[in-house]
Amino acid sequence: MKTCIIGTGHIGGSMAIDLKESGFSSEIIGVDACPESLDKALRRRIIDKAASLEEGIAQAELVIVATPVDAMLELLPKVLDLVGGQVVLETGSTKEHILAAVAQHPKRNRLVATHPMAGTEFSGIEAAIPNLFAGKYTVICEATKSDEDAVQTAESLYQALGMKLTRLDAKAHDVHTAYVSHISHISSFALALTVLEKEKDEQQIFQLASSGFASTVRLAKSSPDMWTPIFRQNRDKVLDVLDEHITVLSKFRSLLIKQDFEQLHQLMAQANEIRRMLP
Amino acid sequence: MKTCIIGTGHIGGSMAIDLKESGFSSEIIGVDACPESLDKALRRRIIDKAASLEEGIAQAELVIVATPVDAMLELLPKVLDLVGGQVVLETGSTKEHILAAVAQHPKRNRLVATHPMAGTEFSGIEAAIPNLFAGKYTVICEATKSDEDAVQTAESLYQALGMKLTRLDAKAHDVHTAYVSHISHISSFALALTVLEKEKDEQQIFQLASSGFASTVRLAKSSPDMWTPIFRQNRDKVLDVLDEHITVLSKFRSLLIKQDFEQLHQLMAQANEIRRMLP
Repeated sequence: MKTCIIGTGHIGGSMAIDLKESGFSSEIIGVDACPESLDKALRRRIIDKAASLEEGIAQAELVIVATPVDAMLELLPKVLDLVGGQVVLETGSTKEHILAAVAQHPKRNRLVATHPMAGTEFSGIEAAIPNLFAGKYTVICEATKSDEDAVQTAESLYQALGMKLTRLDAKAHDVHTAYVSHISHISSFALALTVLEKEKDEQQIFQLASSGFASTVRLAKSSPDMWTPIFRQNRDKVLDVLDEHITVLSKFRSLLIKQDFEQLHQLMAQANEIRRMLP
Repeated sequence: MKTCIIGTGHIGGSMAIDLKESGFSSEIIGVDACPESLDKALRRRIIDKAASLEEGIAQAELVIVATPVDAMLELLPKVLDLVGGQVVLETGSTKEHILAAVAQHPKRNRLVATHPMAGTEFSGIEAAIPNLFAGKYTVICEATKSDEDAVQTAESLYQALGMKLTRLDAKAHDVHTAYVSHISHISSFALALTVLEKEKDEQQIFQLASSGFASTVRLAKSSPDMWTPIFRQNRDKVLDVLDEHITVLSKFRSLLIKQDFEQLHQLMAQANEIRRMLP
């Protein structure tokens, strides 16, 4: 299947590699606002050729939009304007705002809204790698608003990437991702800032950073260009979870102040329940 | 060197494996308050024999104390009562309280206070693994209060484990570990609780947990039995860092409320500086 990927970054580039490798795509046409990214994608042979938005869409049977979510708000209506019978698939990390932007579009039925939960702290075409998606989940949102053949194409694509599929409505998606992805990023960014502030005085501090510390601040390496629009679009739900998280941290604080170590022990034992979920 | 390890858990057991493997220890004598742990250590051949505290110390040239830090407060004076010319080495995650407990002991000079920064979220003899320490840092604290031969033995031991060495006074150690280890654990415990609370209503939520989420909550699997005494002993310094962390999170919250996404972007770009430290 001739595939046009708009946004040849971490997700778009990694998809290109696996779609070509698995035989799902016969040709990958890359479209990107950044000529350097396209150039790198060509040189690494991640895409077969570069094109403009119009050319790329005209030549493809399948269009994948994998840009940051702020760009999607403008781009998705434009892409739908340009398609005929092709399938369009978007991979954004938020859904309510994005889907509101195309809700009334006459070609809304050609779009399948998806979120492959496979990103890492890296971004850009430099971070495109094979096998990024295998074994992970993709959410398909508001599938009833997409044509059946379009949903089937999206499902086959994600199966070709080795992914498992689940369905959610747009709102539930945004609540869930606020809990299992967005808050982790804020927590990690904040932890990095807390320690970096201290490090101004104490150069030595990072020598001692344990692998546990590295694990909790790993997401603080994530791109602000990608995450600012995610937080903008999912602001209300992220704020709810952030409030809850600050409340739980304040509980730890209050138990430490009161020296109630029995309750503190109990709280940590409750947190251990996470082992059930993430063995 | 005949070595007695008191506390055959994650750290003690992993040390036993590498000390034997590297030839540093000719024999490992295990001492543990929990008979099942000793039994497992024997069956896995991690220790050569099990003994009582008194027997173990009497037969060894080197004594390693690797228990949780609450047990150390009582155990270390007792161990120093029992040693003659042997070297005693402790591996606790806190230092001020522990070293205060033996500051006036007539055998204080035989004790070397160390902290191999190599723990993981796992605990117990089941989590004893080879090569846990290689490439990581050990802090030696208050080295001037230990005999020179004792410090040399400790240094050779950690070099045999492949570790790098650094020195700090007890207070600086406790401040640094509050920043690069203890706060990460609280953050992770709190994040797990935040999401587990939500999960009561939404069974599906963990399907979507990304590898980023798993990374930030990994430490929430840590043992409350080990961490309660650490937080008890390092309470004041942990509280300072926790206050700072809550302040930074509140800054994120306030920027989201004000919809000041420019500042939010800038804050995340600052957090990216962590790449310099943890590439």
